[in-house]
Amino acid sequence: MPAAIGTPLDELDTPALVVDVVGLERNIARMAEWGRRAGKGVRPHAKAHKTPLVARKQLDAGAVGICCSKLAEAEAMVQGGVDRVLVTSQVVGAPKIRRLVSLARHAEAMVVVDDPANAEELSEAAQAAGLRLGVIVEVDVGQNRCGTAPGAPAAALAERIARLPGLRFEGLQGYEGHLQHVYDAAERRAKCLEAMARLGDSREAVERAGLEVRVCTTAGTGTHEIAGECDWVTEVQPGSYIWMDADYLRVQGTPYRSALTVLAGVVSRQREGAAIVDAGQKSVSTDAGPAAVKGGRLTYAPMGDEHGRLTGDDLPALGARVELIPSHCDTTVNLHDELHVVRDGRLEAVWRIAGRGKVQ
Amino acid sequence: MPAAIGTPLDELDTPALVVDVVGLERNIARMAEWGRRAGKGVRPHAKAHKTPLVARKQLDAGAVGICCSKLAEAEAMVQGGVDRVLVTSQVVGAPKIRRLVSLARHAEAMVVVDDPANAEELSEAAQAAGLRLGVIVEVDVGQNRCGTAPGAPAAALAERIARLPGLRFEGLQGYEGHLQHVYDAAERRAKCLEAMARLGDSREAVERAGLEVRVCTTAGTGTHEIAGECDWVTEVQPGSYIWMDADYLRVQGTPYRSALTVLAGVVSRQREGAAIVDAGQKSVSTDAGPAAVKGGRLTYAPMGDEHGRLTGDDLPALGARVELIPSHCDTTVNLHDELHVVRDGRLEAVWRIAGRGKVQ
Repeated sequence: MPAAIGTPLDELDTPALVVDVVGLERNIARMAEWGRRAGKGVRPHAKAHKTPLVARKQLDAGAVGICCSKLAEAEAMVQGGVDRVLVTSQVVGAPKIRRLVSLARHAEAMVVVDDPANAEELSEAAQAAGLRLGVIVEVDVGQNRCGTAPGAPAAALAERIARLPGLRFEGLQGYEGHLQHVYDAAERRAKCLEAMARLGDSREAVERAGLEVRVCTTAGTGTHEIAGECDWVTEVQPGSYIWMDADYLRVQGTPYRSALTVLAGVVSRQREGAAIVDAGQKSVSTDAGPAAVKGGRLTYAPMGDEHGRLTGDDLPALGARVELIPSHCDTTVNLHDELHVVRDGRLEAVWRIAGRGKVQ
Repeated sequence: MPAAIGTPLDELDTPALVVDVVGLERNIARMAEWGRRAGKGVRPHAKAHKTPLVARKQLDAGAVGICCSKLAEAEAMVQGGVDRVLVTSQVVGAPKIRRLVSLARHAEAMVVVDDPANAEELSEAAQAAGLRLGVIVEVDVGQNRCGTAPGAPAAALAERIARLPGLRFEGLQGYEGHLQHVYDAAERRAKCLEAMARLGDSREAVERAGLEVRVCTTAGTGTHEIAGECDWVTEVQPGSYIWMDADYLRVQGTPYRSALTVLAGVVSRQREGAAIVDAGQKSVSTDAGPAAVKGGRLTYAPMGDEHGRLTGDDLPALGARVELIPSHCDTTVNLHDELHVVRDGRLEAVWRIAGRGKVQ
């Protein structure tokens, strides 16, 4: 049920995804300030919020554009008014390529590429539409997922792309997603610099081939400051810094604060030593472990699709509310249709998560 | 993008949630036939499909009503034309109770109760609306989640309810959710019969108090046949039998067949010995482990929000499709907005999952 603006937080219907908007604004401002200080572009990742208004706030704060995991996520952002999107995954097959070319008529839309046949298909479709599509070569810097091998193979693909009439070679992407949650600061820094060296080698190889690398995009919330030490990096792609899920809060040295919770209500107090809440796997994701309970006094464990168990001292009574801090904000946001935006303890707005479920 | 009816399965855009409709129809018919043979009602659980048309097919096949995990799920079912719903979780707090009473004007809506104060609130709201609400006392038969203790406490609550002017005591619910996925048939049977004994004791206690137990509802896909052996059980609540996720397929002695997959497309073939597909944690849930790959030849591992890795022999080429069998159908269905219904290898219909995200 849509709640009335002004409703106190603890009277919102449950479960509800809740934004501490002061925390959100502070996180956005802090990252923008870091970018200015470090002289790096910030291209925040929409996978964390999937909400055009949050993207616009990031652009207003100085972001150079918005990253999207999927084409459909980018479509949701552009329809929501975002004018600069980078699709950070490969767009494969004729139907999706046609959609991408259509999107590029309505916004600056770039895409990553790691395969020459895919590059040719993109070029043909763009050329047929009378467009020139900006593309970025994805380099595997150690995540072992998508991307060409670093160095010469990246340069070879860049050269092929530069010769294709429908494409404009823009630069390189190397995402070290596997390092974001390395808790120890020294270990994270060492591993990240190794990954960055692979990106730097690739940049050199491309430049030796006579091509300009305008964009060298990388890093996330956990590694952007380390990537920022490298000359060859032009911009970073942090997503989770706006929310800081429970797992990121364990990562040493990240100055961002928790701003996203799931408000849950106690629905059963029949068990000794436990309170059952109405938030289970369909309200708070478990792929990074169980959620934490705000305040730190209680422990939450999921109990199926729609229930969770709280344990600890001073358990809340039937009908009482608790705030859960998701262990993974991206997948938790993706479960909900709306963000309940709270300032000074009261509902200020309800924002539709337009990119929710946009996986195609 | 909405696909054209008649599109071959392997030309659907990816990732897409796909229903083998022949399998679905066979599973629904088989469960209905079991109910007739066993002389038990079948009240299928909507948490597995969240789709009113699937509920209607279950009712057409003879189901006595539809179970819903949450009030909002029940609202979605009733708005989709379902006329008999049982909310299998406690409905707590004045705003939700008002919604439940409103719902009861438009359908036969029952709810479970495990707390006397909650029962009084329900009674007052129903009475104020000039209604009498059917309620079922939830008994904890070993799941250790919601529900009164079995036996005397269940009877005491039933007696209190029977005296409340806005309520009509209908019977008992005892859900042994923790036993559904016990793979070994003998172990599952022994444990289920223990749980059923707690439900039987509770029924006797209520009847000794002079109340009629019209409904004694329990069990799921993994245990309905065992619960069916017990005289005191009047009906069962299976959900997953319509889809049979990868984990249920490991449960010995379940005759239902796999009818739900996530169609994924290969988006990168840059790694030796791996193909990367476009289905990650936002397309196929991981709370019960990784999805299986249809055909059994390949292995899938999630790689973040939007990617997964296939390994094995004869890896599919860039752009090729594979079908993933979710490890947990409930939470996977809840990620998607639409079911792509396929018969004889072609798209027959697209059904909106109206209950998706309805957690309140």
